[in-house]
Amino acid sequence: MQSFTELSSLFETTFNTRHFPTHTATLYDPAQYILQLGGKRVRPVCVLMGNELFGNIIPDAYHAATAIELFHNFSLIHDDIMDKAPMRRGMETVHQKYGESTALLAGDVMFVRAYEYLNKIQVNNLQKVLHLFNETAAAVCEGQQLDMDFEKRASVKLDEYVAMITLKTSVLLAASLQLGAILGGAGEGNQHHLYEFGKNLGIAFQVQDDYLDAFGDPDKFGKQVGGDILSNKKTFLLIHAMETASAEQLLALQQLMKENAPDKVQQVTQIFKDCKVDYWAKELKKKYLQTALQHLEDTAVISVRKQPLMELAAYLIQREY
Amino acid sequence: MQSFTELSSLFETTFNTRHFPTHTATLYDPAQYILQLGGKRVRPVCVLMGNELFGNIIPDAYHAATAIELFHNFSLIHDDIMDKAPMRRGMETVHQKYGESTALLAGDVMFVRAYEYLNKIQVNNLQKVLHLFNETAAAVCEGQQLDMDFEKRASVKLDEYVAMITLKTSVLLAASLQLGAILGGAGEGNQHHLYEFGKNLGIAFQVQDDYLDAFGDPDKFGKQVGGDILSNKKTFLLIHAMETASAEQLLALQQLMKENAPDKVQQVTQIFKDCKVDYWAKELKKKYLQTALQHLEDTAVISVRKQPLMELAAYLIQREY
Repeated sequence: MQSFTELSSLFETTFNTRHFPTHTATLYDPAQYILQLGGKRVRPVCVLMGNELFGNIIPDAYHAATAIELFHNFSLIHDDIMDKAPMRRGMETVHQKYGESTALLAGDVMFVRAYEYLNKIQVNNLQKVLHLFNETAAAVCEGQQLDMDFEKRASVKLDEYVAMITLKTSVLLAASLQLGAILGGAGEGNQHHLYEFGKNLGIAFQVQDDYLDAFGDPDKFGKQVGGDILSNKKTFLLIHAMETASAEQLLALQQLMKENAPDKVQQVTQIFKDCKVDYWAKELKKKYLQTALQHLEDTAVISVRKQPLMELAAYLIQREY
Repeated sequence: MQSFTELSSLFETTFNTRHFPTHTATLYDPAQYILQLGGKRVRPVCVLMGNELFGNIIPDAYHAATAIELFHNFSLIHDDIMDKAPMRRGMETVHQKYGESTALLAGDVMFVRAYEYLNKIQVNNLQKVLHLFNETAAAVCEGQQLDMDFEKRASVKLDEYVAMITLKTSVLLAASLQLGAILGGAGEGNQHHLYEFGKNLGIAFQVQDDYLDAFGDPDKFGKQVGGDILSNKKTFLLIHAMETASAEQLLALQQLMKENAPDKVQQVTQIFKDCKVDYWAKELKKKYLQTALQHLEDTAVISVRKQPLMELAAYLIQREY
């Protein structure tokens, strides 16, 4: 059994190569560029962990892990175009550096490359793997579309937001673990538990991410604290605040969202506190984390094999609050 | 053996259905929209013809044909975004109607759907089919990137243009035929000849398309005559004119490309005629068509089975000039 750090460095060794031809460099250099920006490689490591939970890691798990990481980067390139984001991981986004048309195409061709890695998988698992991958890819597109739809709406219900976040981010984590489980020879019951572990862990992570935007330590939080508040993003916090605020608080909140007062972040955060949104968010995160851990508990494998996945949960979810 | 018209209507019967879920309609309605704009369905019919050249059409050929048509429409959606094209087949393009971000995502999810159709193919052919499909998809992306690169360059050589056009349009026709051949049980030699038939037919078609832009009958040509000339598009005609023009003609041509004189189309067309570009283009088209037909001739199948593919060539390539 290998730790997250060990598996991450094992994956990096195989992944740290050029994944594209050297010809047509105007297309393939931009695709290669984003892969070299790094990242924690959480999703491909989940594939390897999903495999190792049930047996020794087979070469196909590396093919699937590579496909997952290429798919993830394809979706980042296209999301950044849609969000008009200038920066990612402290560097220019692909469309900022190479133009939108090339970024669009570089994303497309990265997606094709993902499928070519999947196509290296032994034929007895190929259809199952492809089907799960396709379902997941479609879900991620749906999630991104819903996210854009929500931006245009005055309000979003909590269950709608959970459904969107699940599609946009959690199912990829879940599917990565399940892909590994399939390749490790797991039965359908265990595959299901591992999928649900990843899905609920992903939602808990998003609750935490939304929480930290308002209540995080500016020195530790990677992004600008209050960024979601400034852009009126309908996060777990804002949605719950709007659902529980008094008429007076709701009016104040709506006023703050319309104007852009210099102390907007401070004032909105204060309303969040008055509505006890911070406490609620901690409890919600705990609920999803517990559900995730229960599914890991229910996976029919001896406990010691589950250690790396417990570590993964601890790594993604800070337990101190 | 069925004709193009028969196979086209057979394909349309299976294809004329909703290919996407009814939920998340903000994503899937835009995807479905472009499929209903029609089109000649040449590429999926090529899959069916490639199959029927070697045996009865099997259900997998319809899966592959559907995947090819979905891929083609995915590439149209993304190309239209890149080209900022407002109209396609007399209707609004997807991004014009639904916005660029949704069009981008609708394209992505259409591409996923194509792979899900491929995944229905019997497992003994799956890896071969996927590999050819992936190679082709990457080639189409490369072709589109080269096309954009060429727009920024002062001049393009004929062999570079042929290579670009081959990637951007011909390989999809070629691969459609080969996919059908694989599913029909053809050997590698026959697969190769059919691929080359499609590839050379595609290039001949493009020579004709470029020719008709300048010399076509305005009443019969679907697009605006002279559109390529007005936009200084580096077509077969312009490239050859620039390679063969006298110093004086070249200067006049470059001047016309810089200015936008009211009689630009007429003047450029006159230089094309003076350089005998029209005659050259007819000969070039004939050359590619003959190469295509030679590969069909060399396919080891009794002649009568080749009739629909002969008709296809005649349908795509007008023989009267």
